[in-house]
Amino acid sequence: MQSPIQQYLDSVHERLFDVHGGEQPQNNPSLAEADPDLCGLAMTTADGYTYTSGDAEVPFSMQSISKVFCYAIALQDRGFRFMDAKIDVEPSGSSFKDLSSEANTGRPKNPLINIGAIAATAQILPDSDGEVFDKILRVMSDCAARDLEVDEVSYEADRDGGMHNRALSWFLASWGIIDGDPLPAFDDYSRQCAILTSAKDLSIMSATLTNLGVNPVTGKRVFSRQVAQRVLSVMLTCGMYDDSGDWVSSVGMPAKSGVGGGIISALPGQLGIATYAPPLDQHGSSVRGLAAHRILSRDLELHFVRTSKAGLSTIRTHDTIDHVPSTTRRPEAAEAVLAEYGERAHVLEIMGDLLFSGIEVLSREVATFDRNTVCVVVDLSRADHIAEVSVKAISRLAAALADVDTALGLVDPFDRLANLLVPVDMRVEIFEDRNDALSWAEDQILRQYGDEDCFPDEAISTPVLLEGIDEKIREKVVSLLKREEYDTGDIVRKVGDEFDGIRFIVSGEVHTLNPEDEGGDVNAQLVAGMSFGELALNETYHQPFDVRVAEPTVVELLSKSAIEKLENSDPEAAAMLWRAIAVEGYIRLGQVMRGVN
Amino acid sequence: MQSPIQQYLDSVHERLFDVHGGEQPQNNPSLAEADPDLCGLAMTTADGYTYTSGDAEVPFSMQSISKVFCYAIALQDRGFRFMDAKIDVEPSGSSFKDLSSEANTGRPKNPLINIGAIAATAQILPDSDGEVFDKILRVMSDCAARDLEVDEVSYEADRDGGMHNRALSWFLASWGIIDGDPLPAFDDYSRQCAILTSAKDLSIMSATLTNLGVNPVTGKRVFSRQVAQRVLSVMLTCGMYDDSGDWVSSVGMPAKSGVGGGIISALPGQLGIATYAPPLDQHGSSVRGLAAHRILSRDLELHFVRTSKAGLSTIRTHDTIDHVPSTTRRPEAAEAVLAEYGERAHVLEIMGDLLFSGIEVLSREVATFDRNTVCVVVDLSRADHIAEVSVKAISRLAAALADVDTALGLVDPFDRLANLLVPVDMRVEIFEDRNDALSWAEDQILRQYGDEDCFPDEAISTPVLLEGIDEKIREKVVSLLKREEYDTGDIVRKVGDEFDGIRFIVSGEVHTLNPEDEGGDVNAQLVAGMSFGELALNETYHQPFDVRVAEPTVVELLSKSAIEKLENSDPEAAAMLWRAIAVEGYIRLGQVMRGVN
Repeated sequence: MQSPIQQYLDSVHERLFDVHGGEQPQNNPSLAEADPDLCGLAMTTADGYTYTSGDAEVPFSMQSISKVFCYAIALQDRGFRFMDAKIDVEPSGSSFKDLSSEANTGRPKNPLINIGAIAATAQILPDSDGEVFDKILRVMSDCAARDLEVDEVSYEADRDGGMHNRALSWFLASWGIIDGDPLPAFDDYSRQCAILTSAKDLSIMSATLTNLGVNPVTGKRVFSRQVAQRVLSVMLTCGMYDDSGDWVSSVGMPAKSGVGGGIISALPGQLGIATYAPPLDQHGSSVRGLAAHRILSRDLELHFVRTSKAGLSTIRTHDTIDHVPSTTRRPEAAEAVLAEYGERAHVLEIMGDLLFSGIEVLSREVATFDRNTVCVVVDLSRADHIAEVSVKAISRLAAALADVDTALGLVDPFDRLANLLVPVDMRVEIFEDRNDALSWAEDQILRQYGDEDCFPDEAISTPVLLEGIDEKIREKVVSLLKREEYDTGDIVRKVGDEFDGIRFIVSGEVHTLNPEDEGGDVNAQLVAGMSFGELALNETYHQPFDVRVAEPTVVELLSKSAIEKLENSDPEAAAMLWRAIAVEGYIRLGQVMRGVN
Repeated sequence: MQSPIQQYLDSVHERLFDVHGGEQPQNNPSLAEADPDLCGLAMTTADGYTYTSGDAEVPFSMQSISKVFCYAIALQDRGFRFMDAKIDVEPSGSSFKDLSSEANTGRPKNPLINIGAIAATAQILPDSDGEVFDKILRVMSDCAARDLEVDEVSYEADRDGGMHNRALSWFLASWGIIDGDPLPAFDDYSRQCAILTSAKDLSIMSATLTNLGVNPVTGKRVFSRQVAQRVLSVMLTCGMYDDSGDWVSSVGMPAKSGVGGGIISALPGQLGIATYAPPLDQHGSSVRGLAAHRILSRDLELHFVRTSKAGLSTIRTHDTIDHVPSTTRRPEAAEAVLAEYGERAHVLEIMGDLLFSGIEVLSREVATFDRNTVCVVVDLSRADHIAEVSVKAISRLAAALADVDTALGLVDPFDRLANLLVPVDMRVEIFEDRNDALSWAEDQILRQYGDEDCFPDEAISTPVLLEGIDEKIREKVVSLLKREEYDTGDIVRKVGDEFDGIRFIVSGEVHTLNPEDEGGDVNAQLVAGMSFGELALNETYHQPFDVRVAEPTVVELLSKSAIEKLENSDPEAAAMLWRAIAVEGYIRLGQVMRGVN
């Protein structure tokens, strides 16, 4: 099957041939002589995959699209305060050739009109081993994920014919925006405009901005997040010259065009888009390129008003621990305490993002809990988009809860909070597994309201499963048990093993492993009093999980043959045993089903 | 516990008292005499909850904030084409008093400078039973969720002192932007600026825009989605006058200020924010208000570059149906076919949003499946933010799959696709329940590769549970069964009922209901061959789910007393029966556990 995204992009490419008009600049032979029928589209995703359609690998000169990246380099080199003193970030509402500077200081209105771009280029610092332009070409190559080159013909035409830009450069020197001779900056500016890129290159360069400074193809950080954010903001308000307002209203993405026929647009966090088609409208933007970005924005709903999170965060479920118990088997005394006080431990599951709106909804709900609340578990398994702001907000929530002596536990199975490297309030307990968090919440209740009977002994004499059986029969069953000892790392049962009996854990701990996961993720932790092996009674699937020993462990095996012997010698006892096994099975099924819903 | 969001907002409010400076307009007594120490904040969420801090209910005149809403009303009344011919949407880069109109036509640069706002007000059509201003006040009241009033003192001061605005009005008339006498428009404009709102009102009004036209407090649609999107776009580029570029760079939200001391900002889809603090800076914006919006944007990461979805969509799991079977019990022949061909049915679970990036990741994966693929199940249970664009993209995916004879099933438990009211490709099967979708996928495989032995009879003579038992004993058990008949809607078992036996379904269908859900959501559908009642063997919880009859149903009851009789009279048979019950229990436990992982 061909990707429907590719099919869609090809269909957009095809529709562009119905779009006509526009002219090519005559003052630059490279631009004048470009084939007017060339038309290429490219889109690069946040994970570095590029879709292309049409002439997406034909190189052409970047022209004004270079302004975006030179401004970014200058910001990175000089910092915001320095650059803001040189160049403002206000839309000029005028054409790219305008002399839009402040009346008193000469400060250019923004870095995306020619005068501002020349001023920005002049601030770029060379690498220690080269010239300013080497730095420009290197960083742009980092953005494109390949080594870029310069179109010398285009460069010479702009250098020799760029009277207007020479004038702007001298104005900048006269106002002190450029220190001393402005011609090196003019030269670098002319040369950067002549850097050859294809639509594919530009889509990757744009994606480096949308990806907040990290090239999604190479993984290399090229600009800081702050620089990328600033550049995208300026592209949004100033990127399309005197057409910016209409562009924001109808397309709603940061963008930049060049008279080389290229246009880039950028959907923050998601996509870099680039087009190439030489004929230009009266604003100097590619006619077919504009049409392509408009179509893509409309069809794929890329306008910033639409792509901003729709505040869909909701509390998917809200229960108390007595309604959603963990699968941990507890002594009867503990079960009674949990039945009475379990409503003081709340379990909330968040669905949607965990940016402001998610935290807000959560905070509002938690604020309604009464003062007896012992702990709150927030399950983030289904939460999307966890950011640094989420961590700060969670820490605020933890502090507010600590003020009323309530503990906070979080379920974060993908380590997303930890990966953000922002310190979380020490009073938050983080669990990879929902069941562990539920078990922790139960322990909180038991520690507050239970006594020692609520906590199991380290070593268990009577397995839970056998507790309900008449004492005489239990003794008979216990006499059939065979002791086994295992060391850490032993595999007691393997996927596919046939049923060979039931093992009761006397002491130690074993883990069942998730078969879907090659890393052998732990599915469940079984401790003293619990049993395993019964699942292999399924004659189609047999043993469904590997069982691995987590610490030196002693088990008592009630073997298949011992059970058969009992069936023959004492069917009454066998019936009671099978009844107990059945009851245990349905207790566990009920627990898992409650956990699922 | 106090909401941490409230605590946070109060802390921002407190920090504002360290912000000083600014002056109040002297040409309007209402503004000149306002207490300079008043300071109020308000935030309204997408679901209509409003947080306030400080003087958030003190009324003051909207002034220029009204321009946003009058432009929206005019757009709603006249349409985009008509309004765009009258007023452009380009940033003026100049102050609010500027005469920023096009040289040849007089068309104002945008609707948020005075000349553009007067031009917009002039286009508003009155309701059939009133004047233009009645309409303005009514719609603004709809946005604020209460009846607003006019500050007559402020109105008269602006009407009598508004020389500059009178001049602008006459210019508009001279250029034909206003037809005939411009003074009624001038009068309406002056009066709308004097509408009294509090920070709380304004935050709800702003939230009506961010909520794409629907007032989140009342649920009333005030503007179309297109109008709200356009207004938010124009606010972003033109809302802060000659400070717009800096605002976009540093705050990154659509916003509008008024000389009454108010500022609104808008986080699309999430939040309306409003502040009130009278002293103004040289641009005419509230000094403390600006500080507040900057602090909120930074702390809560509300900048558009940050809030746009971060493309985190991922395929959380990718399995084939042989690894994630449904819980439907199948004949042995079917199990064999599913074991052999199950890898031709793929099951993908999406996590994150289903906007472009989600569909893109999904499409890319599906495009790699080989040509033998029979069907694909896409589980959207954990997907966030499903929009109209998602439906279109799913339809494109379905069409691409249909081209290679592959069926597409979707799991959408919250009916989110259906609620969008956009037609989905007819070839997509939508399921509320993941298990139903898995069962459908199995049926697809069985229909292609299985024979009639793979499908169970409509009515079952031997319950699945008893199939494995020795025939003689089975006959004995069957002789103990008691036939029961139920009608649609009957509740056979209620939560908490003690174990009274096991019911085998002979024909018909029963549903187990989710006890967490008051609506009685269906948990599982049980049909002929299946049994229920065993879960009540848990002596702590007893029967965990209500069981409701979905269509006329016949069951055979193996009652608790019949089992006890068997235990006494024929313990060997009882042992085999309990063994069968135990095996069935562990088969079901294994199924549910596989489904969970």
